[in-house]
Amino acid sequence: MRVYNFSAGPSILPEEVLRQVQSEMLDYGGTGMSVTEMSHRGKTFVEINDEAEAGLRELMNIGDDYYVLFLQGGASMQFEAIPLNMLGKNNKADYLVTGNFAQKAYKEGQKYGDLKAAASSKDANFTYIPKTTRESFRPDAAYVHIAQNNTIFGTRFTAATMPDVGDIPLVSDMSSNILSEVMDVNKYAVIYAGAQKNIAPAGVTVVIAKKSIVDDPANCLPYCPTMLKWKTQADEKSLYNTPPCFSIYVANLVFKYLKAFGGVTAMQKQNEYKAGLLYDFLDQSKLFKTAVNKVDRSIMNIPFVTGDEELDNKFVKEASKNALVTLKGHKLVGGMRASIYNAMPVDGVKALVEFMKKFECENK
Amino acid sequence: MRVYNFSAGPSILPEEVLRQVQSEMLDYGGTGMSVTEMSHRGKTFVEINDEAEAGLRELMNIGDDYYVLFLQGGASMQFEAIPLNMLGKNNKADYLVTGNFAQKAYKEGQKYGDLKAAASSKDANFTYIPKTTRESFRPDAAYVHIAQNNTIFGTRFTAATMPDVGDIPLVSDMSSNILSEVMDVNKYAVIYAGAQKNIAPAGVTVVIAKKSIVDDPANCLPYCPTMLKWKTQADEKSLYNTPPCFSIYVANLVFKYLKAFGGVTAMQKQNEYKAGLLYDFLDQSKLFKTAVNKVDRSIMNIPFVTGDEELDNKFVKEASKNALVTLKGHKLVGGMRASIYNAMPVDGVKALVEFMKKFECENK
Repeated sequence: MRVYNFSAGPSILPEEVLRQVQSEMLDYGGTGMSVTEMSHRGKTFVEINDEAEAGLRELMNIGDDYYVLFLQGGASMQFEAIPLNMLGKNNKADYLVTGNFAQKAYKEGQKYGDLKAAASSKDANFTYIPKTTRESFRPDAAYVHIAQNNTIFGTRFTAATMPDVGDIPLVSDMSSNILSEVMDVNKYAVIYAGAQKNIAPAGVTVVIAKKSIVDDPANCLPYCPTMLKWKTQADEKSLYNTPPCFSIYVANLVFKYLKAFGGVTAMQKQNEYKAGLLYDFLDQSKLFKTAVNKVDRSIMNIPFVTGDEELDNKFVKEASKNALVTLKGHKLVGGMRASIYNAMPVDGVKALVEFMKKFECENK
Repeated sequence: MRVYNFSAGPSILPEEVLRQVQSEMLDYGGTGMSVTEMSHRGKTFVEINDEAEAGLRELMNIGDDYYVLFLQGGASMQFEAIPLNMLGKNNKADYLVTGNFAQKAYKEGQKYGDLKAAASSKDANFTYIPKTTRESFRPDAAYVHIAQNNTIFGTRFTAATMPDVGDIPLVSDMSSNILSEVMDVNKYAVIYAGAQKNIAPAGVTVVIAKKSIVDDPANCLPYCPTMLKWKTQADEKSLYNTPPCFSIYVANLVFKYLKAFGGVTAMQKQNEYKAGLLYDFLDQSKLFKTAVNKVDRSIMNIPFVTGDEELDNKFVKEASKNALVTLKGHKLVGGMRASIYNAMPVDGVKALVEFMKKFECENK
């Protein structure tokens, strides 16, 4: 029996995608072999790779002035690749420190240049998105870095809080909310995302980067490893060396599934509806509450607590018995967290809310 | 219908492993979710990760004085990670240039130190393994690097050609022959291998490295990125960040399959038998020949030609129609190449030899 899996990552995949993967496991498209067994230089895999790139371009409306790369190493690798690929001409960058990964990106980057935390919400355990103005940023910064959605703390940047960076290139970690809401890619110089939340099994990382930045070798720090250089993979359509073929294959299926669903616009509507169900309940509950600033609430990751650790544990345990699993909150926040990515069905959120109601009744 | 797939990589996986992956695709061990959907911090995946490490340790008889790491980025990433992790104290290293990847490793490494090609077989298009003596290596080299098996050219190091490096740490790229024959790990300081030939789907790279080297920070070059530093993952049992979970899961199944088969000793016997079938035929054939020096022949990758390009193409095409696929040789060598990794059944090699006999008869 399948469960409703609220894991923050790696996380739930669309069941129909898993069923297709299952059906093709021993023989992909009549080739007599699994996708995992074929040369990445062969016609079949090159087609998959091309389709995946085209699919993401279509879904996010990515222009020809951007590269779309499928890389390895996770967002963590990009925490270093970003300064290594962008601080070559100008050794300054500004970071918005709005959560755990935003902070990690900031710390890792410090080895490579003069980095400044332009704003932080650490003072309130990252429960809000700090407001910034054009003056928050150094006009000569090589880039401004944000984490668009904060997986652990359950906040996200919205139109109201998006930094006004002027001409400074904006870099965004969208690991936990890529494809969950419509984004104007043109506002960004670089978007990156580990795949394991909204795209595919762990092992591939998407980087969407302006060609003008990638193509200018002066942007790279001189000691940037070849394998961390975006240009290396950009020149080879992400096939410089053997790619994580299986993850790219599943990503392609997820992109097709999302397209068939109606694209990101339709998915955003469903995501807002799903998050609304849970937030509406939380806002009137006498047992459960969320610490997150209302206007900054994520529609992907929703942390909540009862305020009583023992009761939290009881909740997680009983929920699990009811096929609502991986609801334990991150240790930095405690309590519970429901990650309701694109692949989480509406019924999963409804089942969770029903269970929370019942639990509240029984634990007054 | 499954074919016999002679792809050099990514390549054939044991059919029983694929069947198990297929059966668990929607529900791994009663968890109600796929392995690709679960948190890498959860009990279930941590167990898989631990089992995979223990399995490889047992199969290769790896001592406690070595780390076993599951990394991302492929062998290509290690071409840089090796000098970055090993040239900190002493900026010299010697390379044996015996093929395409050996050469790539050598070239990439040159950015990081004083590298010397101690020997090369480029003079004869890498058809042999050059003999070396203790004097071939600089006594103060930080390491000597070899590619144990040369995927494209079909050679391998054997007891007769293994370099006598004395106390110099030996680093070996075993991407295309790990687990194919018994190796004494203690002779090596570092063994590394992209998984996509004998271990698992592409996306994970195994690094087996002496703890004494990894644990001494002075061995690292100061600008080594955190994510390329072996110590980063060694301290976290390869779970510093989200790992390529699916590839590690399949690797674990392949290790179990190999153990059930009788371990590396039994597999080596079968590999030698399989390679023998093909080489015996080649040695008496009047149509097909192999350019590789007899004593240096790989038991994993066997390139051969007819000497007539048109006939080669005809062979590849007709073989393919007979479910013997991906036999086209690498562009650097031409002709054909049969990669007969661990997962290639004896019957696959027999079918290939039978087909070659028939083709020879028909094309005298």
